Amino acid sequence: MDFFFNPQSIAIVGATPNRAKGGNAIIRNLDNAFQGVVYPVNPKYREIEGRPCYPSIRSLPAIPDLAILFIGAEQTVSSVEECVKKGIPGVIIESGGFSEAGERGKELQRRLAALAQQTGIRIWGPNCMGLVDVLRGHVFSFTDPLVLKHLLKAGPLSMVVQSGMLSAGFLVDLLSHEISGFSKICSIGNKTDVDECDLLQYLLQDTTTEAIAFYLESFHDLRRFVSLYQEHRPQKPVVVLKGGKSDSGAQAALSHTASIAGNSRIAEDILREGGIVTACDFHQMIDLCRTLEMTAPLMDKPRKNAAILTFSGASGIVASDFMAKMGLNVPSLTEKTTAGMSAFFPPWMPPANPVDLWPAIEHHSGKNRDIYIMALEAVLADEKIDACMIHSFIGFSRIHLDLEAIALLVEKWRKPVFIWAMGEKEKIISFRRDAWRKKIPFFHELHRAVECMAASMSYQPAPPPPSSIA
Amino acid sequence: MDFFFNPQSIAIVGATPNRAKGGNAIIRNLDNAFQGVVYPVNPKYREIEGRPCYPSIRSLPAIPDLAILFIGAEQTVSSVEECVKKGIPGVIIESGGFSEAGERGKELQRRLAALAQQTGIRIWGPNCMGLVDVLRGHVFSFTDPLVLKHLLKAGPLSMVVQSGMLSAGFLVDLLSHEISGFSKICSIGNKTDVDECDLLQYLLQDTTTEAIAFYLESFHDLRRFVSLYQEHRPQKPVVVLKGGKSDSGAQAALSHTASIAGNSRIAEDILREGGIVTACDFHQMIDLCRTLEMTAPLMDKPRKNAAILTFSGASGIVASDFMAKMGLNVPSLTEKTTAGMSAFFPPWMPPANPVDLWPAIEHHSGKNRDIYIMALEAVLADEKIDACMIHSFIGFSRIHLDLEAIALLVEKWRKPVFIWAMGEKEKIISFRRDAWRKKIPFFHELHRAVECMAASMSYQPAPPPPSSIA
Repeated sequence: MDFFFNPQSIAIVGATPNRAKGGNAIIRNLDNAFQGVVYPVNPKYREIEGRPCYPSIRSLPAIPDLAILFIGAEQTVSSVEECVKKGIPGVIIESGGFSEAGERGKELQRRLAALAQQTGIRIWGPNCMGLVDVLRGHVFSFTDPLVLKHLLKAGPLSMVVQSGMLSAGFLVDLLSHEISGFSKICSIGNKTDVDECDLLQYLLQDTTTEAIAFYLESFHDLRRFVSLYQEHRPQKPVVVLKGGKSDSGAQAALSHTASIAGNSRIAEDILREGGIVTACDFHQMIDLCRTLEMTAPLMDKPRKNAAILTFSGASGIVASDFMAKMGLNVPSLTEKTTAGMSAFFPPWMPPANPVDLWPAIEHHSGKNRDIYIMALEAVLADEKIDACMIHSFIGFSRIHLDLEAIALLVEKWRKPVFIWAMGEKEKIISFRRDAWRKKIPFFHELHRAVECMAASMSYQPAPPPPSSIA
Repeated sequence: MDFFFNPQSIAIVGATPNRAKGGNAIIRNLDNAFQGVVYPVNPKYREIEGRPCYPSIRSLPAIPDLAILFIGAEQTVSSVEECVKKGIPGVIIESGGFSEAGERGKELQRRLAALAQQTGIRIWGPNCMGLVDVLRGHVFSFTDPLVLKHLLKAGPLSMVVQSGMLSAGFLVDLLSHEISGFSKICSIGNKTDVDECDLLQYLLQDTTTEAIAFYLESFHDLRRFVSLYQEHRPQKPVVVLKGGKSDSGAQAALSHTASIAGNSRIAEDILREGGIVTACDFHQMIDLCRTLEMTAPLMDKPRKNAAILTFSGASGIVASDFMAKMGLNVPSLTEKTTAGMSAFFPPWMPPANPVDLWPAIEHHSGKNRDIYIMALEAVLADEKIDACMIHSFIGFSRIHLDLEAIALLVEKWRKPVFIWAMGEKEKIISFRRDAWRKKIPFFHELHRAVECMAASMSYQPAPPPPSSIA
């Protein structure tokens, strides 16, 4: 599979000098960062974007590691046959017009699948937007070359999607909102050959990927997918958003990527039982994946008991309500913890969980004691508490959050801490950046904070692989 | 109640020259915009912030319309007695230390309640942050005078909260993220006299308030609250977030605003049966309220059938799944609609609901036909469709959304249209601003879009008031 992500040379079949066309965008995307050799292929032109253009795959002066096809569906089969003859190991077919587009398209896709099976050539797609390898700067896609060039930012997540939008528009949205950086983004379309199992296997081995998000409309082999996830060490969190759970959604999936959505409820049960987290929305999928990437190393078994530290009574109350709804407990603290915390609380307001710190902050006004950190140490030390949510307001000097100190306490007690905070927009964004750098999940809205906290706390470490049972 | 929002003169009892204290912040907040007379009251000082300071309420040279008390709980009863003697009609007590803080506090609060009942003076609070009247620039609160001054922005929503945070930090968050502008924000604390019914009644009459969000930890009189809502004409949407639904949340509500949370499930059922929308999270409460404010005038009865227009197959599929989960239908379109739309779809991809417009956009590439608007007109004209969600990407020229045209179609067909869109951060914010100006709800995340759409479509117009049954 490495020839897909790291080829030394690429043929672009369907290259064109017309800058309004995808067959041109693919070349300009390569010009942004690809260090290898690019062979435009099109019998109509002698030169494209300053490079010599070849009339056919056969006529290429060397064997490229990869061919990207952006040609009419009808021409793809013979083109892949040429690739086979040339000895090219992998092909990405980005054109549409296959199983998603009627009987003739289905027939063409069947022939592609047969070619892959008979000859061993690997086919990625068709009907997809290819891939982005952020660390290498590789954009093997017909997406707008101007947009991604300036936005790409490396990060620990990889994403595998059966949707062009998710690897283009959604990616732009995530990058520009600084929601996550990425390692690899793979748009796999109709999956006639390369499927979610191939990518899962590859990305589990990929040292620059710490967690993987999948948007899938069908599974080729669900059991194998779960086994691959479970058997890999060290474990990497996997989040799956399955499209086509409703009748109308399943119907639409059929005409989108020709996916027979199957019984999604059973599929989701199997995923969850296997320890894979399921999502129901796009941004939520990324937030879940990002959170698990940060907290999974702290989780040795599923847990339920949370402490809440806040400066606002209402926030503690509504956070408690939300946690109860999501299956978490907000238990009372041990007497030892309460007694210890009473030292910095006013006598008329003894601490309870959720812990409203405001009376303590007021009580110590001007004395520069870091109430949040003292309280955090106390609740993390409590044997009844498995994790803590801190609610705060960013940009208000009296409730400054010391991220350095929080990260040290997480490390010391090996219990995850989640921050949910409000504040002025720019301050929120910059604080979130700092929190994430220290692997502390940060959220702007309560519901998402609790959803991710619940997923994180119920994260099920996979059973040890068979080989380690001795 | 008007003396609370629009007094001509205010006494500040507990005023202080110390800029670190709330009793000073209240005066500086008045200095920002209040046009009337301010009387600082404190026997310790002769002058505060350039104004003469009076030793007592009795010694004031005139009868103020309102007194704001920021003094120790023990002094409040005698201070209110003085206000009664002076003839002041209303008092806001912003200090804490009452029912939320033990037996002595409960006793003091009981005495305040008795004073209100016996003398007719209206008491707002205690244990609250007062009120903000955005249009008048009135900030009757000890909140930081520097923060709100530059952020306040007028809008159609009013908010009534039993929480200081919601009328301070959360308000700053909402304003700085441009989530909504406001008319009035009322922090009502322990509600010893002025309660949610008083405010509901007042805000229903308030011509600058189009919809009202409540965060409440208890109800004084739930049935009356629902009746007030139902009887008012023209109808104004009301959204309630009830804190203390879980055991731990209810326990925390007791020590926050001394609220006995009661059976929240029954309370929420009564609210919903009465046509009041219930929320479960803070930002969601505002988004629901904002959406209902825009769409309620279009709803004559609850409806369920939605069309989805998108440029992405995956978005249509996951949106369908989400709608099904929230009780909405995504029905197939009538043959007439499909036939009409086929005119601008490629023959190999007939339109279906969810409508993936990308094939049509590709098909008409460069021909400058506004596919989104043609499709919107077609689905709104369909008798099987009650509302439409448009999914788009902001900042991509090929799928420009013409807000002007959308607003005209909403007006013509009297069916609500909701936009869910991704895109670069700044473009999203500016587009959202434009959409809201045209009363078209706009969302960045699918789940919130569908939640608000579902609330909006199930919005139950209240039965006609008894007087109109003839």
